[in-house]
Amino acid sequence: MDSFDLVIRNGTVVTASDTFVCDIGVIDGRIAALGEKLGAGREEIDATDRFVLPGGVDAHCHLDQPMGPGICMADDFESGTRSAACGGTTTVIPFAAQEKGSSLKAAVEDYHRRADGKACIDYAFHMIVSDASGDILQHELPQLIDAGYTSFKIYMTYDDLKLDDRQILETLTVARREGAMTMIHAENSDCIAWLTEALEAMNHTAPLYHAEARPSIVEREATHRAISLAELVDTPVLIVHVSGNEAIEQIRWAQGRGLRVYAETCPQYLFLTAEDLDKDGFEGAKCVCSPPPRDKANQEGVWNGLESGVFQVFSSDHAPFCYDDKEGKKAAGESASFQYIPNGIPGIETRLPLLYSEGVLRGRIDITRFVALTSTNPARIYGLYPRKGTIAIGSDADIVIWNPMAEWTVRNTGLHHDVDYTPYEGMVLHGRPQTTISRGKIVWDNGQFLGAAGRGMFLRCERPQPARPRGENRGF
Amino acid sequence: MDSFDLVIRNGTVVTASDTFVCDIGVIDGRIAALGEKLGAGREEIDATDRFVLPGGVDAHCHLDQPMGPGICMADDFESGTRSAACGGTTTVIPFAAQEKGSSLKAAVEDYHRRADGKACIDYAFHMIVSDASGDILQHELPQLIDAGYTSFKIYMTYDDLKLDDRQILETLTVARREGAMTMIHAENSDCIAWLTEALEAMNHTAPLYHAEARPSIVEREATHRAISLAELVDTPVLIVHVSGNEAIEQIRWAQGRGLRVYAETCPQYLFLTAEDLDKDGFEGAKCVCSPPPRDKANQEGVWNGLESGVFQVFSSDHAPFCYDDKEGKKAAGESASFQYIPNGIPGIETRLPLLYSEGVLRGRIDITRFVALTSTNPARIYGLYPRKGTIAIGSDADIVIWNPMAEWTVRNTGLHHDVDYTPYEGMVLHGRPQTTISRGKIVWDNGQFLGAAGRGMFLRCERPQPARPRGENRGF
Amino acid sequence: MDSFDLVIRNGTVVTASDTFVCDIGVIDGRIAALGEKLGAGREEIDATDRFVLPGGVDAHCHLDQPMGPGICMADDFESGTRSAACGGTTTVIPFAAQEKGSSLKAAVEDYHRRADGKACIDYAFHMIVSDASGDILQHELPQLIDAGYTSFKIYMTYDDLKLDDRQILETLTVARREGAMTMIHAENSDCIAWLTEALEAMNHTAPLYHAEARPSIVEREATHRAISLAELVDTPVLIVHVSGNEAIEQIRWAQGRGLRVYAETCPQYLFLTAEDLDKDGFEGAKCVCSPPPRDKANQEGVWNGLESGVFQVFSSDHAPFCYDDKEGKKAAGESASFQYIPNGIPGIETRLPLLYSEGVLRGRIDITRFVALTSTNPARIYGLYPRKGTIAIGSDADIVIWNPMAEWTVRNTGLHHDVDYTPYEGMVLHGRPQTTISRGKIVWDNGQFLGAAGRGMFLRCERPQPARPRGENRGF
Amino acid sequence: MDSFDLVIRNGTVVTASDTFVCDIGVIDGRIAALGEKLGAGREEIDATDRFVLPGGVDAHCHLDQPMGPGICMADDFESGTRSAACGGTTTVIPFAAQEKGSSLKAAVEDYHRRADGKACIDYAFHMIVSDASGDILQHELPQLIDAGYTSFKIYMTYDDLKLDDRQILETLTVARREGAMTMIHAENSDCIAWLTEALEAMNHTAPLYHAEARPSIVEREATHRAISLAELVDTPVLIVHVSGNEAIEQIRWAQGRGLRVYAETCPQYLFLTAEDLDKDGFEGAKCVCSPPPRDKANQEGVWNGLESGVFQVFSSDHAPFCYDDKEGKKAAGESASFQYIPNGIPGIETRLPLLYSEGVLRGRIDITRFVALTSTNPARIYGLYPRKGTIAIGSDADIVIWNPMAEWTVRNTGLHHDVDYTPYEGMVLHGRPQTTISRGKIVWDNGQFLGAAGRGMFLRCERPQPARPRGENRGF
Repeated sequence: MDSFDLVIRNGTVVTASDTFVCDIGVIDGRIAALGEKLGAGREEIDATDRFVLPGGVDAHCHLDQPMGPGICMADDFESGTRSAACGGTTTVIPFAAQEKGSSLKAAVEDYHRRADGKACIDYAFHMIVSDASGDILQHELPQLIDAGYTSFKIYMTYDDLKLDDRQILETLTVARREGAMTMIHAENSDCIAWLTEALEAMNHTAPLYHAEARPSIVEREATHRAISLAELVDTPVLIVHVSGNEAIEQIRWAQGRGLRVYAETCPQYLFLTAEDLDKDGFEGAKCVCSPPPRDKANQEGVWNGLESGVFQVFSSDHAPFCYDDKEGKKAAGESASFQYIPNGIPGIETRLPLLYSEGVLRGRIDITRFVALTSTNPARIYGLYPRKGTIAIGSDADIVIWNPMAEWTVRNTGLHHDVDYTPYEGMVLHGRPQTTISRGKIVWDNGQFLGAAGRGMFLRCERPQPARPRGENRGF
Repeated sequence: MDSFDLVIRNGTVVTASDTFVCDIGVIDGRIAALGEKLGAGREEIDATDRFVLPGGVDAHCHLDQPMGPGICMADDFESGTRSAACGGTTTVIPFAAQEKGSSLKAAVEDYHRRADGKACIDYAFHMIVSDASGDILQHELPQLIDAGYTSFKIYMTYDDLKLDDRQILETLTVARREGAMTMIHAENSDCIAWLTEALEAMNHTAPLYHAEARPSIVEREATHRAISLAELVDTPVLIVHVSGNEAIEQIRWAQGRGLRVYAETCPQYLFLTAEDLDKDGFEGAKCVCSPPPRDKANQEGVWNGLESGVFQVFSSDHAPFCYDDKEGKKAAGESASFQYIPNGIPGIETRLPLLYSEGVLRGRIDITRFVALTSTNPARIYGLYPRKGTIAIGSDADIVIWNPMAEWTVRNTGLHHDVDYTPYEGMVLHGRPQTTISRGKIVWDNGQFLGAAGRGMFLRCERPQPARPRGENRGF
Repeated sequence: MDSFDLVIRNGTVVTASDTFVCDIGVIDGRIAALGEKLGAGREEIDATDRFVLPGGVDAHCHLDQPMGPGICMADDFESGTRSAACGGTTTVIPFAAQEKGSSLKAAVEDYHRRADGKACIDYAFHMIVSDASGDILQHELPQLIDAGYTSFKIYMTYDDLKLDDRQILETLTVARREGAMTMIHAENSDCIAWLTEALEAMNHTAPLYHAEARPSIVEREATHRAISLAELVDTPVLIVHVSGNEAIEQIRWAQGRGLRVYAETCPQYLFLTAEDLDKDGFEGAKCVCSPPPRDKANQEGVWNGLESGVFQVFSSDHAPFCYDDKEGKKAAGESASFQYIPNGIPGIETRLPLLYSEGVLRGRIDITRFVALTSTNPARIYGLYPRKGTIAIGSDADIVIWNPMAEWTVRNTGLHHDVDYTPYEGMVLHGRPQTTISRGKIVWDNGQFLGAAGRGMFLRCERPQPARPRGENRGF
Repeated sequence: MDSFDLVIRNGTVVTASDTFVCDIGVIDGRIAALGEKLGAGREEIDATDRFVLPGGVDAHCHLDQPMGPGICMADDFESGTRSAACGGTTTVIPFAAQEKGSSLKAAVEDYHRRADGKACIDYAFHMIVSDASGDILQHELPQLIDAGYTSFKIYMTYDDLKLDDRQILETLTVARREGAMTMIHAENSDCIAWLTEALEAMNHTAPLYHAEARPSIVEREATHRAISLAELVDTPVLIVHVSGNEAIEQIRWAQGRGLRVYAETCPQYLFLTAEDLDKDGFEGAKCVCSPPPRDKANQEGVWNGLESGVFQVFSSDHAPFCYDDKEGKKAAGESASFQYIPNGIPGIETRLPLLYSEGVLRGRIDITRFVALTSTNPARIYGLYPRKGTIAIGSDADIVIWNPMAEWTVRNTGLHHDVDYTPYEGMVLHGRPQTTISRGKIVWDNGQFLGAAGRGMFLRCERPQPARPRGENRGF
């Protein structure tokens, strides 16, 4: 063990539970040693006075996802993973979205084609199950889980994606039986449609009304329902992109009853409010996402949920649409109504700096929880741990050298995605990734992207929970 | 005022808030005087040592409702209202059930035909809105509300009745605009169907499995959803036949937030448990109703809800099916599965005695709350107050002389419905109606039914809440 | 029954549950008849278009209570009950306060001397038990309960009044055994003392700091503790003058568990906030009471609690101290610190108009609940019902003819207490008592006080709950 | 780094967040390297198929604590730390208990004398502050915190130990200012005294009545009060030995509001119930501790709290009294009443095996949470981290080699304390420590104790939270 490919010297290593100073020795892209005064490496990095973190795992992002006529995502796997790497993230789990009427396999294959040769960092796929008919649930889904696609998202809203309660129950039943993890987008579809029509009938079509069409009640109701369906099936679920207090109350209630209900939140619910949708002209469209940002009191609730353990995962929900591009957001919504604005916000590169600066440095969460929320927990919940998500012997050398004090200003010109804006333009932050290492290779260093398209590998995920044979618990 | 048609002497009058001894003078079927030593009446009743209560208002009962092929209700308006009168009830509000594809008006007219010339006591109708399509909501429903049908029930389960969330929102919107009251049967339809299939696949078809197909989660989820939809529309709703703690928790939570969420429970949730569905042979079918009875802990929760004010209304949910009759319950379910057992339990005559004996005499609720739950509140909530529901000057002389201590045993042979069993057979109770008076006329006295088919009048109900013009609150 | 002393014609009678138009016949100071077109009375009042309410029962007021050197109450039994009558209140239940080291009997006798020949309306006494030593609990208290003093207040704060937990348990045990009702002033004494010292050490002595010395936590903690002690003893308690959401949350939680925990609130928690303590000069002292008024959000919580049934009783907590009088508030506090400002606010005359105008007319509570909160419930809870608290045959003819629409402005010059200010100066209200009748005698009519000192009778109260013999429930 | 004193080969290292296989290299009693195929050590241990855990930190145990006349603890520092080591614990934090009237320094010095030359493993001290008078709080306590005694326990019960609310506030204020951690024994003293007298008056003196004298209400009330006092002072507290659902509900409520309220539970609340106090003869005395064990439903609640994160710490609360020894438990209680039974249960050696066998192996908690609860969290909360509580570079080599499957039966004869019984006699467990290493030295191996009295070192603790200067937050 005397010869390392890479040695990181004297950094303050942080895991989801520990903080300690040591050297890290890397061999063949994996962490081979942690210790004092390790032997020489062919390459060495001095990390004195730096945090050495496991690379971020962004478990909720959308890359190169087909969106229907006239709309396309600004980031493909190359620009998206490049932007991720520059922001300290070394693993992404974007979605392979099934179209209704198509098979899941077709979706997975399509996304492999989109990612192949393009990804700069490692990636896995969540599936999106939008069609639970025929033998998709009984045959395709189990086979794909077997093949390493062990998590999927289901929607309770969006006409082209949503499942009804019966389909959710059946899908959860497969998740239970096969040991997969189910992510749920929880908003009540009918309520949104009804509110949208009412708002449009009153000519309330500006971006601001996007938030009025999706009030907290709508999210709370669907969250309670998702929890209830999961309780009935007796399988864990993860509620994605939780926006505020009403949904949090439901999740906390479920967790307090001992149900395995996990939850995720995103930067937009900490740093934006519905008022950001009310900017001059159509600028508010830049902050349109679902659920919408709420208000200050809800932001405080989300911070409290991060601190007190309601949330396990902090993701970007990066959904990259250009604002000025003809095929992007503005064109889609401005001529008509808020409901045609593509939903989503870019954020894959700013996720870690925002949480660090406002969360860790302001004392709301400590650095180990920062690691847990951004890396360890998502890796664990989605079956990538211990390969990803920690700094431990045998784990991939996906590592971020974090400069804890660097002051910088968020400018879209300084980001590496292909979106033409960031909702956080002008924010002054402290702390950022100095160096990002992907399987032992430096891909970002001191402001330079050093990675390469195609170096990122596809990751087969383990089952996040034991498969349960038929016959247990009501016999499902 | 010196000449009364009827004077009730020296009874202990009870209202929803008061208890006092006096004489009651009746003229033309209405209460004309309360006082000490009133002048003579053409007819006089000595009520010394008796409670004198406003006649019961049974706001949830099913009479002569068409059920589909091979099943028919055992009670028509004659036997049903006769049984009610003998049990101390002077007003019933059964349902006029719309069939999907038919109009509401047709339903109302049909039920008028069924009731005309048959009812022994006064009656109003709730509608059941099962089809919210076309102009039913926009034209028929407002006209019927105008005409005195000011409340309706909607279902979240049963394929032939249920509305989806969008339809519920639109129906609640009409209720808000027109000042009507909405009753909701809250159980999640998809969950029940999914559980039923799973149970049947395991050959679990006995009556007991009816309860397993409709666990508390299923009721709780729908209750939370109903509350959320009503909160969104900003209109009151009444959750009918609440069975236990999980739904109660949701309702209490809503009430604590200041939402106008009312709730009803029924004798079956106080006196039966799921174990009653597990009797020898197919006898359990006698206790099949939806939601199903739960267990002792849930019974306690329901009692507590009656005492602490979660519940405003105590109804029978009388749904009369014979057990041995070929067209009744047994035939329908025994050969196949619990799901074919007609849902419902008889109870229109035992409602008041059960609550009095086990509630008032055991000190769980006081006698004024007994009156509130069984008479005043339902009259008020459904727009029949002050004509019905109290003993006050100007109100109809619908009065029960209640013998507070009489010990008796419930025997179906002693009841006056046309159902061939009672789930409470053999229970020993204390207290029962000695005399029932409907608009000044004695219809039940010392064990004799003295009423007559056709004497009961149809009652047009007032709007239970102010109609809200369009434009308030989100513009609906 | 053809000859009445007084007939009130054609008013809209309101009880805690009912509203109906009729005449009221009074004989010998009691209500003898309710009816249409009653025979003639020697005196007649036309109440067309007026509400006819049971006279208010103010169950929490302080009159002529000795306060220690240099401080004296501005109202004795004459001015206090005169002011009450002019505001529509016909019964008061002030406190007979025991001094530590003295007997309860001495206190009761002293207060009888203070009331004799002075009271204009009927009155009962709560005792204040401040010394639970010796045989006071075992002998004096039971004898006094027997003699018609069936409720008492205990304090968890104020050095000269407070009981410790052990004393509270023992006092509650007597209440249980003897069937008495216990009122609790719930604030944590040690916390207040500690905060007060800290504030004074920083020279924070202005009236505003009174509120900072008694934050919501302090009330919430004591409320939870009071509930717990009562739960242990298994006896009802009534938490007096609840100020806001934190205490309400505890009470609602207790009620939801089925505990017999009652609650009272007062006008100051609906109409004042802590900001009123921060007026120019020392004016803030006028609004100093304990617990202190909170903020708008807490006001909303209190309104919601009135509507949803958390509160049973609405009292004035009239505690009359002059502002400019040398022996009153200003002198006591201004030279030193907020802690020397006598605690309390006048309000015996404005209690009903404030609640009616802002509660009933704004649609927050209906008129029957208004009656329940201000008259029926306090009469019932403290053992004065049915003699007081309702309009029913046999009850005392304590009646208010209420002009429902009269607009007027609160001016201290228009009030009838002997306090030199009202905290509600300048408020424009709608609705007020036109005529107040005490046992058949008009004592206030169209702006004229017509009563007489000494006409008010002392009322012996019934036991509010059954006495429980030793040996039940843990044997206490 | 090529030469290690000790190398542990190929074990499955577990931290509070991670699990990975590697070698561990130890130099000078500290962990110097983690890696694959580390160089040779002078001593080597093969840990293949074994968990390698950070040694347990038992943060709540009583050793050689003076108890008053006639009672003495069975374990001194030698036998107690020996027993701990044999059970996989490498650090203990017993209490240095102040006597009322004495100084804190005297207590600390006394306990040093008791520990010096006796402890087999490292130890720190919590203080018990039972006398907050004079300058103890203002001078002694800050000096001792400075000197490394950075946590202390306060009692809300026991006459010789308890502080009143005012003293608690002042003590918490010092904790806030100096950055110390406060542990609170939360039971309401007055309630217990009152219940005890009532029980004894009925001759209910058997051990069983110990549980009746301390019902859940008593613990819940004190827990709510402790939380409130801490909220007022704005400083963290840790509620020790939480026994069940009522207290858990309060703690969860506080945590949900964002308060820094930590909680500890102990084996007795997972494995004993109040029925264990009702054994034949006086055997029940063996299970007498405070709060008492509850019932199965409460056990489930405690398990759920361990899983869902309500609890951070799992301690033994080892309080060693012999059952048959004349100076021990039996003599003290049997002749008189349960209240004279010394409170406490032995458990320092069985703590880890019980939680592992019933918690980890039954799937209630995972192995990383096991480490967090038993080692990392207590080390962190009490200022011993990262020296103790983890396996990380630079940490002390306090390590347990855990045999994950070994089946064994708990027998007191096989334990190493000086108590003459274990409450868990006869339980069959799976998994136990094979080897315990204290600062690199093997002290327990394959059933042999290899340690030595006097090798254990005293540990100065860091401040668990930043000291807050006067002037922040209300100026305290």
